[in-house]
This record gives sequence, structure tokens and C-alpha cells, in this order.
Amino acid sequence: MAEFSLIDRFRQRAGARPDVVLGIGDDAALLAPPKDRQLVLAVDTLVEGVHFPKGIPASAIGWKALAVNLSDLAAMGAEPVVALLALTLPTDAPAFVDEFAAGFAALADTHRVALVGGDTTRGPLAASVTVVGYVAPGQALTRSGAQPGDDLWITGTLGDAAGALALWRSGVPMLRTGSLRERLDRPAPRLGAGLALRGLATACIDVSDGFLADLGHVLAMSGVGADVEVDVLPTSAALAEAFPDPLVRRALQMAGGDDYELCFTAPERQREAVRAALDAVATPATRVGRITEGASLRLFDADGLPVPLPARRGYVHFGGEGA
Amino acid sequence: MAEFSLIDRFRQRAGARPDVVLGIGDDAALLAPPKDRQLVLAVDTLVEGVHFPKGIPASAIGWKALAVNLSDLAAMGAEPVVALLALTLPTDAPAFVDEFAAGFAALADTHRVALVGGDTTRGPLAASVTVVGYVAPGQALTRSGAQPGDDLWITGTLGDAAGALALWRSGVPMLRTGSLRERLDRPAPRLGAGLALRGLATACIDVSDGFLADLGHVLAMSGVGADVEVDVLPTSAALAEAFPDPLVRRALQMAGGDDYELCFTAPERQREAVRAALDAVATPATRVGRITEGASLRLFDADGLPVPLPARRGYVHFGGEGA
Repeated sequence: MAEFSLIDRFRQRAGARPDVVLGIGDDAALLAPPKDRQLVLAVDTLVEGVHFPKGIPASAIGWKALAVNLSDLAAMGAEPVVALLALTLPTDAPAFVDEFAAGFAALADTHRVALVGGDTTRGPLAASVTVVGYVAPGQALTRSGAQPGDDLWITGTLGDAAGALALWRSGVPMLRTGSLRERLDRPAPRLGAGLALRGLATACIDVSDGFLADLGHVLAMSGVGADVEVDVLPTSAALAEAFPDPLVRRALQMAGGDDYELCFTAPERQREAVRAALDAVATPATRVGRITEGASLRLFDADGLPVPLPARRGYVHFGGEGA
Repeated sequence: MAEFSLIDRFRQRAGARPDVVLGIGDDAALLAPPKDRQLVLAVDTLVEGVHFPKGIPASAIGWKALAVNLSDLAAMGAEPVVALLALTLPTDAPAFVDEFAAGFAALADTHRVALVGGDTTRGPLAASVTVVGYVAPGQALTRSGAQPGDDLWITGTLGDAAGALALWRSGVPMLRTGSLRERLDRPAPRLGAGLALRGLATACIDVSDGFLADLGHVLAMSGVGADVEVDVLPTSAALAEAFPDPLVRRALQMAGGDDYELCFTAPERQREAVRAALDAVATPATRVGRITEGASLRLFDADGLPVPLPARRGYVHFGGEGA
């Protein structure tokens, strides 16, 4: 059964960092964090048939399992450090594992993340990743600091991953969905932007469940409302081409999820500083609204006319959001 | 679907610690470790049908999912601090979740472990837990320090959990397996013993896959061999009563797994110090052999006659050991 060790396959790709005192292979790993750093901890799971359809390449699953977690660190303004992986596989499939590990490692290496723990188990295909990051005390971005009058911002573009999934569900072969599919399979966590926003953003969240759903978490935890201009939601050329109907496109952008962009708030007086900080890390960002007093989320079009809130504000998977 | 949030159910039981700056509910948690402490990180997954049979009470699954991870921290000589939980559930089952959370919290509270991250997903029943502990630099126990001449020790008793499983597989109702079943369902991680052994043990591992399999990891990583006296392997009265045949009993003890005892080595000159340190934390321990030069593992009976190595040295689940 276990004539080869899956752990050994990961160990070869575990990466190295000077603060990792002991990596994969003992009962636990040892990390020596710098003084005056807090630890930032998050966990997220991808399950086949729930978070990705059957038939996605193993390398994309490996990439995405790490990416969705690094996106949580980005939303906290944290520097990523190490990851632990719990992988459940239905069969003893070395080729799958190698491909999965290659996708995981490609993203890990980009951000100097070392894999320090691994557990492989027989069972239905699922990957649960825990990530650890560093942040200086008081510097973490949270969901709870948005203030009335703050600008509401979104990095990058919304709706691309949801667009790819919608096309695929409509029977369009995945290979023909191009850059949209790349957003679905290999999301790029906004780690540079998260770091750049420390000291500028008052609240931040990553858009995983859908823009309106995740914005709703910020509003609830900050005790504020928001006015959003739906016609300025940032749109990629690929999405506009694939979905010419603005109503369909807008639905994907407001509630589609899997964007892994940062949705954040910042004081109006910091508008130029935000722009400069994000320009410095080559991250586009768009102002899409304003934080208000009260608790209501209101949508408007370009003419200032009210737009009804969609019935479904996000991809509410089983059990609600993760932490 | 998600009319209630499973996360909220866990949040109520998340525990509190002064070093947890931000707990469940944001994109990630924040932990402020003390200066001069290294972080100890481990992950382990329990899957229904692989690590526990269908029909085990949810509270036992919750307890055990944390226990197997705390056992890894115990084997490192670490103090447990926080945990993150990725729970996959086939249906929206609030009663199951409450019971699972109660079992998890009962053990977490005993050891002042705070739950700081949670992700709930639809899928086949599985629980993946990541734990974080503290250890002073240079104090961690590893698998690689065993020296020829060292005593080989085991805490507690071996074979009880495997005995319960064997009885259950033979058709004995779980309720009639008494204290053996308690060892299977609610293992008690040897955290006090792990802390007590810092500075005394030269190598340490927790017995999860089976005594001979886990001892094999220590021997391989330390580059040594061992002579083990199989007739002194520590045996509970319940196991001796349930399995009067010494050959059957010995097989359960050598290769059964799920013991969550500590298997450790220490210099002969520290024999009395080890005894005193473990007495102070009320942990029984038995010397079962001696570390040797070379790489061979040899078994002997009470008369000093060789005993053949069993063909199966441990529960080798899919993919081998976790980290």
C-alpha cells in the first residue's frame, strides 16, 4: 500500500527558510519567528465536487489549495511564512500527487512559503491547508475597522472565475474559456497589495464567497453600511467579451465568488496614498463606493438610481464562511 | 442551506487565551507568542471509515481529532496553545456539530487550547486539525537523538485501542469493550509527560501507527538499532483479560497503533531522573529495551531468546506517516 511515502514526495518540494528550524518528517515542525512579530493563522479546505469540479488538473488543485489560504493572509496584511497540508486521496496515485505537489510548490516558491507539515490519508479527494504568516503588532488588517465616509475599494477585476464556471456549466469546454479559466484554476493571492495597505486600509477582506457576501461581513463587523456603484465594478476585457449582457455580467461580479481580490476601505484623505502604494506593487484598484452610517447596503447605477440587491449575494457554501 | 453558521457554533466554544489577539471570525487569527519561544506545528486528519468506523459518537470524533494532534505536540515536549479545525460534513447536521464541538472543547479546555480557526465544508465526514504549541529554543524533543546504550521507554500501556477495535471487528458490541474502547475513542495525549521529558529524553515519538512502526522511525532518523524485550511491553489489566493468549495480545501491542503513548529514549544515567520526572506528572512508564549500534531492530523474550519480527509492524495507512 504505502511502498512509497507521499510525504517524501512533498518533502523534496518543501522549500527552505532560515526561520524553519525543523521541517517535515518529525512529529511536528519547529518555527523560530522573529521578535516583535505576531503569528497570523488561517485554514481552508477544497473538496472535489464542492470547490472544484472533477477533471481539474491536479496541479491546479495544488495551486488553488494554497492560493485560497494565502489570500486570507493577504487580507490581513500579513507576510506568508509556512504551510501545512492535509491531503485526502481516494487512491494511491503517485502521478496525481506529483502534479499536485508541483502546482502547490509553484505558488509556494513564488512567495517563499515552506511546507512544514503534511498528512496524507485515504478518502475522498480533499485538500486542507493551514498557513502561518507574520505581521507586526497592531499592523494587521481586519474586517472591523471601516468608518463612515471611507472609500470602498476593490483590487483587480471581479467575476472572472465565476464567468469561467458559468461557461463550463453551459457546456463550453474549459480549454476555450482562456484567461477566465486561469482565474478560476490559478488565482493569484494579492499578498503584495495586502502588505502595501498596512497603515492605509481601515478594513480588508478577500473576496472568496462573492463581493456582496464578503462586503457584508465587513459591514457587519464594522457596524456600518455602504453605498456601491455597480456600474464601476472592475471588469476584465475577457469577461466583457464572454458576457456582453450587463445584467448577467453584474450578477457574476456581485455574487460569483472565487475572485480572491481584496475588498478594502480607506479614508478619503488617503486616496492618493492608496493609489501610490498599490501602483508600487503593480496592483490595479478601483473605488466602487463609500462606507455609510447605519447598517444598510445600497446599490446604485451610474445615474445614481437605486439597483435592487440580488437575492443571492454570494456563494454560500455549506456552513458559511471560513476563518 | 447555511441558515445558521457552523462557525458560530464553534466560536462559542473557542476558549480564550491572553496570547490570542484575534480569534475566529476574521480572515485569519492573530497570535502573539512570548519572546524566546519557538512555534511547534502539526496537522493530522481523521476520515470516517479510515480512522474511525461509522457510528462512533460525534463527541468522540471531536475529542480524538484534537487528541491525535496534541499527541504530536506531546512527543515534541511542547506546550499546546491553539488549534485550527477544517471539518467536512456530508449534511447540514447541527446536532452532530454541537456534539463534535463538545468533545473537541472538553479536551481543548483541559489543556487551555483555544480554537482560532475553523472551516466547514460539505463533503464526506472528515476532520483535519492543525495545532500550534510553544517550546523554548533547543528544548524540543525530536526523533533523531537516540544514542547507542540509551534506555528505550514507553509510557502507559500498549494495545488497548487496538484491542477494542479487534473486539469490535469480532462482533463484540462496543459498549461491552469498556476501558479498551475509552482508549480508542478518547485517547489522552501525554502532554505532561512530554514537558517533563525535556532535557532528559534523547528522542521521542508518539505511538500512533503501532509501536514497532513508530520505533522504526526513531531508529531510522537516529541511525541506530534497538533490542526490545517483548514480554515487558506494558499491558493493561483490561487487555490481559480480553486477550488471554499472549501471542494475540503481543501482536496488538507491537503493531496495533492508536495508542498515543510516548516512546522515548534516555541515557541510562538518567534512569532515576526519568522515573522521578514522570512520577511528578503521574505518568507510568516502562523500560522495554535498549538502543544499539547499527540499524537492526531485534526482539527478545523474557529468557533472552530471539522473537521473530512480525510481518506487519504497524497500521500503515495510505501514504505512510504524517508529520
